[in-house]
Amino acid sequence: MTRFRLTVEYDGRHFVGWQRQDNGMSVQQALEEAIFKFCGENAAVQGAGRTDAGVHALGQVAHVDIDKPSVGDTVRDAINFHLRPWPVAVLTAQAVGPQFHARFDAVARRYRYRIVNRRAPLALEQGRAWLVNLPLDADVMHEAAQRLVGQHDFSSFRAAMCQAKSPVKTLSSLNVARRGGDIEIDVEARSFLHNQVRIMVGTLKHVGEGRWTADDVSEALEAKDRAAAGVTAPPDGLYLMGVEYP
Amino acid sequence: MTRFRLTVEYDGRHFVGWQRQDNGMSVQQALEEAIFKFCGENAAVQGAGRTDAGVHALGQVAHVDIDKPSVGDTVRDAINFHLRPWPVAVLTAQAVGPQFHARFDAVARRYRYRIVNRRAPLALEQGRAWLVNLPLDADVMHEAAQRLVGQHDFSSFRAAMCQAKSPVKTLSSLNVARRGGDIEIDVEARSFLHNQVRIMVGTLKHVGEGRWTADDVSEALEAKDRAAAGVTAPPDGLYLMGVEYP
Repeated sequence: MTRFRLTVEYDGRHFVGWQRQDNGMSVQQALEEAIFKFCGENAAVQGAGRTDAGVHALGQVAHVDIDKPSVGDTVRDAINFHLRPWPVAVLTAQAVGPQFHARFDAVARRYRYRIVNRRAPLALEQGRAWLVNLPLDADVMHEAAQRLVGQHDFSSFRAAMCQAKSPVKTLSSLNVARRGGDIEIDVEARSFLHNQVRIMVGTLKHVGEGRWTADDVSEALEAKDRAAAGVTAPPDGLYLMGVEYP
Repeated sequence: MTRFRLTVEYDGRHFVGWQRQDNGMSVQQALEEAIFKFCGENAAVQGAGRTDAGVHALGQVAHVDIDKPSVGDTVRDAINFHLRPWPVAVLTAQAVGPQFHARFDAVARRYRYRIVNRRAPLALEQGRAWLVNLPLDADVMHEAAQRLVGQHDFSSFRAAMCQAKSPVKTLSSLNVARRGGDIEIDVEARSFLHNQVRIMVGTLKHVGEGRWTADDVSEALEAKDRAAAGVTAPPDGLYLMGVEYP
C-alpha cells in the first residue's frame, strides 16, 4: 500500500461540493470512482478542505491509499483518464509516508474570492465570479478587512450548520485589491468555519459600497451573532487556491 | 434614429460564431433578438470581428441603429435584460454619429490566445484554453513569432474557406509570454485572414516543443501554401480582446 498526496483542480458548478452526498455528484465521489476504475480498489479520498457546492479549487489537496504498485505519475494520469468527462483534474500525485493526512496535517488554507464589479451581467465568468453592480472601493474594503485579521471568536461569520467545536479561529491575512474591473480577496488561515470566507466577503461588500464602515465590521465581529454580519456571498466566486503543510 | 456602438463580451462555446447561420444560435442573432424584444425593431447588428464557433470575446465591437429614443445606458441595460440566459453581455452602449461603422472603421483588432501547458487535463478551463502537454519554451516561440510581424503574404496561414480578396496582411505585433503554467499569445493587426491567428498559434506550438525552428517558420511563410504551416489551434483558447478606431 502506498499513500499518495494529490493536488486537485475542479469546477465547482458541476458538483454538490467536495464531500459525498446523496443528492448528487461530489468531487470526492468522482475521484473515488475513477480510482476504482483504475485499480479496482474502494479507496477513500480524504480532502483538506470540504468545499461547498459551486465552490471551485485550483489547489485542493487530498490523500488516498492504493495497493496496486504504481508511481505517482501513473496514478495521476490513470485517475485523470477515468475522471472524464467530469471537470476535475489531478495536477500532481506524489507518494508520501503513511502518516501524512491531507486534512489534519494542513497548517494553512488559502482561498481567493473574485468579484466582477460592473453594471453588465456576467458572460464569460458566469458561475466563476460574483457580480456586484455598485462601484466598490477596494482600498476601504482592505482597510476594514484588517479588523478581522488575528485570533477572534468568528461566531458572526459562521453558518448555522457549522459543525466546528469552537468559533475561535486565527486569520493570518485578508487582502483586498482591485485588478481592473475585478476585486480579488485573498485570505489565509489554518482553518475556517463553515461559510466564514463567504460571510466575510459579503460583509466587506457592504463596506466597499460605502454602506458600512470599518467600525461596523468590528461591531459585527464583537456581536458574536450571525445576524450582525453581512450577506453570505455566493459560492461562484470562491476558489480554494492551496493548502500548506509543515 | 440613433446609431449605438456596443462593446460586447461572450462565451463562444455556446454559439455557432458571431455571424448568423442556419445551423444554430449566433452572437449576432442573440443580440438582434434581444434588441427586437427591447424596441420591436428588426435592427441589423454589425460586428467588427466575425469570430468562429467557440471563439470568445472580451471586447467585440458592434454597431446598431435604433429608432426608439434612448440613451446609451438604457440600451445597454435593456439588451442585457433580454439577452438572458445567453452568455453574452453588452459592456457599454454609446451613441455615435451615423457614419461610424464597427467593421470598416476599425484600425486594429487585438486577440489573445491562451495555452495551458501541463500534463493534467483541463478542469476549470475546459473550453477556455488549449491544453498542450509537452513543455513549451515561450522565449523561442516569441523569437520565432517575430518572423511573422510586418507585411506579408499570409497564404500559408489562411483557411481554405477564407473570403479575403488579398492574402497580404500587416501584423503589428505578435508576443508570446509565459505566465506560470499558461502561455499567452497577444497579436494585433488591422485585420486578419480566416483562421490566421489559430494557424500562427498552431505553428508556434511546433516551435515551442522544439520540433520547428524560427527558420522553419520563415520557410512556411515563404511557401505561401497552407500545407507548409502548422496545425490550426482549437477555437477554445482564442479571445477577441478589443478593437481600435481612429
